[in-house]
Amino acid sequence: MTRTATLPDIRPAAPTAGDATRVAVSTVIFTLRRDRGADRASVVIPLVRRTRDPHEGLWALPGGWLDVAESLDTAAARTLAETTGLAPSFLEQLYAFGAVERSPSRVVSIVYWALLRSDEVIAADARENVQWFDAASLPRLAFDHNEIVDYALWRLRNKAGYSRIAHGLLADEFTLAQLREVYEAVLGRRLDPANFRRQVENSGNLIPTERFRTGSHRPARVYRYNQDVELADRGPLVRH
Amino acid sequence: MTRTATLPDIRPAAPTAGDATRVAVSTVIFTLRRDRGADRASVVIPLVRRTRDPHEGLWALPGGWLDVAESLDTAAARTLAETTGLAPSFLEQLYAFGAVERSPSRVVSIVYWALLRSDEVIAADARENVQWFDAASLPRLAFDHNEIVDYALWRLRNKAGYSRIAHGLLADEFTLAQLREVYEAVLGRRLDPANFRRQVENSGNLIPTERFRTGSHRPARVYRYNQDVELADRGPLVRH
Repeated sequence: MTRTATLPDIRPAAPTAGDATRVAVSTVIFTLRRDRGADRASVVIPLVRRTRDPHEGLWALPGGWLDVAESLDTAAARTLAETTGLAPSFLEQLYAFGAVERSPSRVVSIVYWALLRSDEVIAADARENVQWFDAASLPRLAFDHNEIVDYALWRLRNKAGYSRIAHGLLADEFTLAQLREVYEAVLGRRLDPANFRRQVENSGNLIPTERFRTGSHRPARVYRYNQDVELADRGPLVRH
Repeated sequence: MTRTATLPDIRPAAPTAGDATRVAVSTVIFTLRRDRGADRASVVIPLVRRTRDPHEGLWALPGGWLDVAESLDTAAARTLAETTGLAPSFLEQLYAFGAVERSPSRVVSIVYWALLRSDEVIAADARENVQWFDAASLPRLAFDHNEIVDYALWRLRNKAGYSRIAHGLLADEFTLAQLREVYEAVLGRRLDPANFRRQVENSGNLIPTERFRTGSHRPARVYRYNQDVELADRGPLVRH
């Protein structure tokens, strides 16, 4: 209550603690991009250029204030749509960032993260002050947003299972070569195809179909993600 | 800003959104208890009886308001110490709960969770309005705290690895039979000893020592948890 402590109290009785802090939501959205001539895809995220202080002119994660009448999930989806036009089908809470000095005023940010398939990105309007950046080589961002992206990247690399990543970043059906390319982009390094195949098959998180894709190489079996794993992974908070 | 919208604006320029919401912290603390005559241990949590509205008289998770000058982690440790006298060595953020109707006024609760060894519990003062409850059969709690405990239990059962659970609930060194007893309490069912041994050994998350414990059974190898796994699991936010 620091900022109102010296003013006459003409307001109705109000709680005297916990309300000098504002709540915001921000979202880290990962997708894959393959630049012309690049030999592999990279993980990119959309950022929004700030048009006011603090940190005017710096790039920041899309987000905004929590409205008193909306849930955290709703606020994440709304602010994301307002700032970027994106509407990812999976938008999950990642972590609450609340260091005292992370903003000039006291702000707790509830951070969400999402995975987007390339076709979902294309569907979104292009916005003038929105730009996509390689998540592995960002400029200095506003507030503690570099730290937030680092944490989200770590979760993507270490915690997201095969089924989750396949569902979020690939089409409904895919070959193991396509899935491996996604993992190579996420991890930023090449993977041995035989080892990768073994790990995926042992994980039980992907379902092999009886279909094969043919092309310049020998026919490759088509897989799909396992929705049971996906839902189990998200636990009892899922209410779809 | 609903509650101040009709009042003359005599305050210094202040943000006009995000500040009608208050931020609280709450903590779910798991430990094991073996009741006299019980054939296995159960998972218990401490609850605090509310002495004021809303929900006066109901049991609630220990917690309190976030102070404007403290971090979320600090607030969790402080409110836990103030309400229960407990000071767990591992206290981690679990999830932010922010449904609009979860409290009569708008409150976002940042929930932490912790594991406590029995000797840490004994060290804490007994408080008059604090009581330990079996996590699997709770009464109706204040606010959405039943839902919060259910989520924390799901995380404990599904996400916490062997190393984390061993470190949080057992002494520094333990036999596989002791670890299995902990898992049986967490899962609420018997586990096959041979299968359990195989899974633990394959996980690579525990380190066998060259020491054995003897007693009424045949000598049992002593294990310790793998601190590297523990720290890797918590990712880049760890700053100890």
